[in-house]
Amino acid sequence: MIAGLADLQTVRFSEEGDGVVILDQTQLPEREVYVTLRTAEEIWEAIYRLKVRGAPAIGIAAAYGLSVCAEQITATEKGIFAQKLREVARYLSGSRPTAVNLSAALDRMLSVLDVHPDSTCEAWKKMLRHEATKIREEDAMACRMIGERMLDRLRPGMGILTHCNAGHLAVSELGTALSPIYLGQERGYGFRVYADETRPLLQGARLTAYELRKAGVDVTLICDNMAASLMRKGCVDAVIVGCDRVAANGDVANKIGTFGLAILAHHFGIPFYVLGPTSTIDMSCPTGEAIVIEERAAEEVTEMWYAHRMAPEGISVYNPAFDVTPHELITAVITEKGAFYEKIISESFANPETISNFAAQFEDINN
Amino acid sequence: MIAGLADLQTVRFSEEGDGVVILDQTQLPEREVYVTLRTAEEIWEAIYRLKVRGAPAIGIAAAYGLSVCAEQITATEKGIFAQKLREVARYLSGSRPTAVNLSAALDRMLSVLDVHPDSTCEAWKKMLRHEATKIREEDAMACRMIGERMLDRLRPGMGILTHCNAGHLAVSELGTALSPIYLGQERGYGFRVYADETRPLLQGARLTAYELRKAGVDVTLICDNMAASLMRKGCVDAVIVGCDRVAANGDVANKIGTFGLAILAHHFGIPFYVLGPTSTIDMSCPTGEAIVIEERAAEEVTEMWYAHRMAPEGISVYNPAFDVTPHELITAVITEKGAFYEKIISESFANPETISNFAAQFEDINN
Repeated sequence: MIAGLADLQTVRFSEEGDGVVILDQTQLPEREVYVTLRTAEEIWEAIYRLKVRGAPAIGIAAAYGLSVCAEQITATEKGIFAQKLREVARYLSGSRPTAVNLSAALDRMLSVLDVHPDSTCEAWKKMLRHEATKIREEDAMACRMIGERMLDRLRPGMGILTHCNAGHLAVSELGTALSPIYLGQERGYGFRVYADETRPLLQGARLTAYELRKAGVDVTLICDNMAASLMRKGCVDAVIVGCDRVAANGDVANKIGTFGLAILAHHFGIPFYVLGPTSTIDMSCPTGEAIVIEERAAEEVTEMWYAHRMAPEGISVYNPAFDVTPHELITAVITEKGAFYEKIISESFANPETISNFAAQFEDINN
Repeated sequence: MIAGLADLQTVRFSEEGDGVVILDQTQLPEREVYVTLRTAEEIWEAIYRLKVRGAPAIGIAAAYGLSVCAEQITATEKGIFAQKLREVARYLSGSRPTAVNLSAALDRMLSVLDVHPDSTCEAWKKMLRHEATKIREEDAMACRMIGERMLDRLRPGMGILTHCNAGHLAVSELGTALSPIYLGQERGYGFRVYADETRPLLQGARLTAYELRKAGVDVTLICDNMAASLMRKGCVDAVIVGCDRVAANGDVANKIGTFGLAILAHHFGIPFYVLGPTSTIDMSCPTGEAIVIEERAAEEVTEMWYAHRMAPEGISVYNPAFDVTPHELITAVITEKGAFYEKIISESFANPETISNFAAQFEDINN
């Protein structure tokens, strides 16, 4: 665990095991407040309201939540138990539509029942608890491997720009996009990190700046619209972001603003890396076109966080939570199992058809 | 005057003529509050604190302010009067460094003394008042002509994206970037307008959305980082922005975020127009490299406008108020005297050397 972050626990079980304890991220950076969620409704609401956020973290929170809800099912008839569990899983998966980790984690939890059809309800409950913990542990391990793979591609003293929060708070332990930064910090790489504030919900200002500073990293906050100036000044050697869903062709859904940043990086010839566990890759989704983009409430833009109303009453607002970056703009997708799309950036931009098939690469590495 | 905006007066003399009355734009969109400025310090502070902002409007406010301060000079010895007036002008010109209109308006005011060396101090005071009014009137006329020239290049029903506020509130009457939108509104063009909120000071959300809505224009607010998604959806047919200073080679300093937007427009093949009066063109400034970019306080990013602190205490912040868009990314600079750089966008991007010399064009049209 990185010094300075040991006391920040994003998602865990309560000591009695009857609830999911999350760090309420909507209260950062002012207060570190932990809340215990005990019902499906509380878990749904915490995910929907972004008290817990970040694609891997919501997967973990949902898995932990499903385990907690499973304990509350009193039915001993296995068909009824399974039906009730599926109902809770379906309900939780509706809390946010874009990240694949949410439904993937819930599907993995439900598969426990199919893999062990002869077990009792009580045994299933134990297995579900074990499976949820395993999801978190595997995630933490994946983050470390992702960080190592990315760090191999970086040099000491580099300037790194990141967007939104794909760090400790979004995942577990090291995060995805911030994992190479933490590993570099441990090894004296002396990175200069720039954090986009990430409107409207300011995950960069509130969370990334917070956790990096807490870990002693040299971090400078900018508004999203300052990235081009920073790139032109030569301050940015690499852009590193996380992802909410990767389609089979390598298109990436991530926090709104990622796509524009990829276009800027392309313009300046700066490599653009997407980091995420293979659980974020959705092979059933052929291209970015097929990814559902969540649109959120206008109030997030016009009044949330503010002391004063910052836009006129009744104004129309377009507020997509994510965008899709086409694979042509991505230097590499780095996962715990390997990197896809690694290429000399100028060459691939000149000849997109020379990019080898993402899906084929992914299957190769998975076999 | 556009219906709905008649009651919004950005800068005027007080009824007694002893002060400059400005609409305090830091209080919009919540309240329409007018404040009367009577001393050089009050005028300096109003410009510095952005109570009055927008390149042409700060030129007008400074000219009006210099006239008010001139009235207060009791010296009747002309040398002393001139010296005191120059001191006030030098002081006021330091309130903001980037917009050329501020120093240009003050220089124009001072030239009254040189043009009429034989007049008395009392006569100079009258001439200064007249000159200040003329600056505003010429500005309003220039805005109308800029709007007409731009409207010739637009078609009904187009989607237009704008950044920051270069409207009625930034200038006088129609504004620069918003002038074609207001003229189109009068003539039933039915534009769909998108306003970037423009962090950190939210001029787009607070001012552009406010004045366009008040005038009945179809306007949708977005966060700055959503522009790429909007462009890919095909919603944007043209980007239209104002400018704070245009260098002799056609490079443009404007509100931070403009440069990134120009790169996005280039990527999508969307025309990118810069609108401003010829007073914004600084022929003494060879290229954008020579333009001083104002850096402002970190608190504008981390806490201003907010009920809660939105970034950790002590975080480093990079907060440039402007950026420079290189002329290669600009389809045309539209002024009251004509358009520069008009070209078929794809052609010019393919062959930047085919772009004819901006300075030569400017001199042609000025002769």
